[in-house]
Amino acid sequence: MQKTEKSHWEPRYASREKRMQASEIRDLLKLLDKPGVVSFAGGIPDPELFPRDAIETYYQRILSDPANAKRALQYSVSEGDSNLRQWIVSHMATKGVISDADNILITSGSQQALEFIGRLFISPNDTALVTAPTYLGALQAFSANKPVYDELKVENTNRTAAFYQQAAQDADGDLKLAYVVPNFANPSGETLSREGRVNLLGLAQDLDIPVIEDSPYAALPYDGQDVITLQALNIESCGSIDASRVIHCGSFSKVFTPGLRIGWVCASHEIISRITIIKQGSDLNSPAINQAVMHLLASELFDTQVAKAIASYRIKRDVMLAALAEHMPEGVTWSRPDGGLFIWATLPESINAQALLPKAVEQAGIAYVPGHAFHADGSGKNTMRLSFSLPRVEDITSGIEQLAHLVKGEIKDKS
Amino acid sequence: MQKTEKSHWEPRYASREKRMQASEIRDLLKLLDKPGVVSFAGGIPDPELFPRDAIETYYQRILSDPANAKRALQYSVSEGDSNLRQWIVSHMATKGVISDADNILITSGSQQALEFIGRLFISPNDTALVTAPTYLGALQAFSANKPVYDELKVENTNRTAAFYQQAAQDADGDLKLAYVVPNFANPSGETLSREGRVNLLGLAQDLDIPVIEDSPYAALPYDGQDVITLQALNIESCGSIDASRVIHCGSFSKVFTPGLRIGWVCASHEIISRITIIKQGSDLNSPAINQAVMHLLASELFDTQVAKAIASYRIKRDVMLAALAEHMPEGVTWSRPDGGLFIWATLPESINAQALLPKAVEQAGIAYVPGHAFHADGSGKNTMRLSFSLPRVEDITSGIEQLAHLVKGEIKDKS
Repeated sequence: MQKTEKSHWEPRYASREKRMQASEIRDLLKLLDKPGVVSFAGGIPDPELFPRDAIETYYQRILSDPANAKRALQYSVSEGDSNLRQWIVSHMATKGVISDADNILITSGSQQALEFIGRLFISPNDTALVTAPTYLGALQAFSANKPVYDELKVENTNRTAAFYQQAAQDADGDLKLAYVVPNFANPSGETLSREGRVNLLGLAQDLDIPVIEDSPYAALPYDGQDVITLQALNIESCGSIDASRVIHCGSFSKVFTPGLRIGWVCASHEIISRITIIKQGSDLNSPAINQAVMHLLASELFDTQVAKAIASYRIKRDVMLAALAEHMPEGVTWSRPDGGLFIWATLPESINAQALLPKAVEQAGIAYVPGHAFHADGSGKNTMRLSFSLPRVEDITSGIEQLAHLVKGEIKDKS
Repeated sequence: MQKTEKSHWEPRYASREKRMQASEIRDLLKLLDKPGVVSFAGGIPDPELFPRDAIETYYQRILSDPANAKRALQYSVSEGDSNLRQWIVSHMATKGVISDADNILITSGSQQALEFIGRLFISPNDTALVTAPTYLGALQAFSANKPVYDELKVENTNRTAAFYQQAAQDADGDLKLAYVVPNFANPSGETLSREGRVNLLGLAQDLDIPVIEDSPYAALPYDGQDVITLQALNIESCGSIDASRVIHCGSFSKVFTPGLRIGWVCASHEIISRITIIKQGSDLNSPAINQAVMHLLASELFDTQVAKAIASYRIKRDVMLAALAEHMPEGVTWSRPDGGLFIWATLPESINAQALLPKAVEQAGIAYVPGHAFHADGSGKNTMRLSFSLPRVEDITSGIEQLAHLVKGEIKDKS
């Protein structure tokens, strides 16, 4: 989608920046923003759920008080608002993670956390272990540092630490990190079992690498049992957050609003000190006023807002699952997420989900993200991510029916 | 100031991240935030000037309208708010730069712009040309990419392109960029003459490198003639922004408030496309709500606010210059800035401004930034940056008197 232009500056770019391309997916998503198209594409929270009145009240509360306003409109420390960090300390404690404010850094969404972590650990040719599929924004954040990706498998696998070490050696770099979205994953919707978590931590210990626990959806479970966070599980054996190898990334985007751009990292003091230095050089600090508003939202409304979001998204998930069951032809399978925003569908091998997308938009009036974008190796061409968070309930039903109709036609054409 | 801890992760860090240290200056500044200390240290705008009522009104205006609120609280495009970009297009036109919205990227303060630009151009051992002294935040942003710095001189110099090329070759890398703060520079307070600008652009053309024009203070001239922006001057000869080698970084932080974290880059479409990709992977987008508020501030209040800031800061500058003239002993010299926030003072060679700082804080009750922090090579030990923007007028007079008293004592001790 990016216009190809003659580049004057190519010889001057940093070597790692050469051949960087815009995410074709993000560019694609721009085109999907058409009136009349039902979008299952972006992992976009439902704006009807944004606590607009509360946000308005809190901005006003802060700005109408001269002393608070001056602080909220001034430069502030790179680590982030101390009240908000303290709230996150309490929140992490409910997940079994005992930390203090020095273990928390506020970031501009968890995307920024991933970018900082990638920069801290990855040199060109180093190996990052990621699941297949995995979050495309993580691939984008890490890829700036030119890693090699190896597929992380921790359930039903006989891959050993030696296997991964050999692969990293063959790639002429070091093994640097493992990255997972353990709860209601983007894009698969799947949750890593307790056993898988134990395996992952064992593997990480054998390899002596950090584990990035990206957990923006953890507050949105719709049913099933809560599985312990990787960070809490790791602390059970290593004894303390400062000894832990897990770097936990959280976000307020999916619960409250992505518009304030506030996420956090909870990790050992060593790691937090290092990424705080990166934050200083990158943008000094996240907007103090937004952090102050988020502190009020979190401390006054977190449970209420979570309950509201869960009630609404659970219905949408159920409606999408029912529509898939009712309309999809044989040969199509999909995940059944216990939470989060995504269902992952697999079409018959013969169907290329990316090639199908223009037809989906133009003929069926629906959009999704083709699954290959979530694969470091570009595989998964017959897969797609369907997000149920944004469309209205009635549009989910009709949209899936349209998609199923299109898929049936494709199957017929190919047979 | 950073605690030295045993690092578990040192072997896992990316090679370019090893030995990165927190800015000792930023850590120092934290300590200076003591009650009773008159701070000439940070380049911090006066919070009394923040248009608090207008900001409150605009947040409310946006959030009380359901459609606007939903947009402002949602994910948005990496390029930035289109209304705000359009306003910046008009603003750049008043500086002689004809652009369109595709030439503008919104960043989280101009610090983020510098970080992106450093990442785009600099590989380890490449040379960046910077003045001595230069903005320490630029050094921090660029240094993450491990450049070599060479001193940029364009006034009263016989340094040729060949001189710089040889130096870069000796450093085993390529010449990648020249960075300047041409108006009321941080930290020197000086403004690059038109002749110096012509020389700089000629040099950059000979070297075929981009010129980073960092211009956060341009809206704050207190007297003297306006000098044409480097970007406009370059366009006069190259014909268009898309052919220009100047990357102009602007900011709303010094005029309105740094708390919303909004700056911009104006450059050729090629450069903007590239740094937009970096922005996508770094934090997706700057907060949409803050951009919407800044658009209202800029379009409704820019001239009024600029006039208010100029009137206030001009008085403070004059008071500081008068106090320096009245109290400083022979052997101390200082710049006379035509705008901006800073005066640059040079003490006798024998006095180390960093070593003097603890005494300044504890005995004189004043703070400043030691000048060596603004030198890529750590020189300038007898210099200091004095910012007049934050303290009250009466504290500027008494603070400079105290500082002068301290300096006189030091001169006496050393003689």
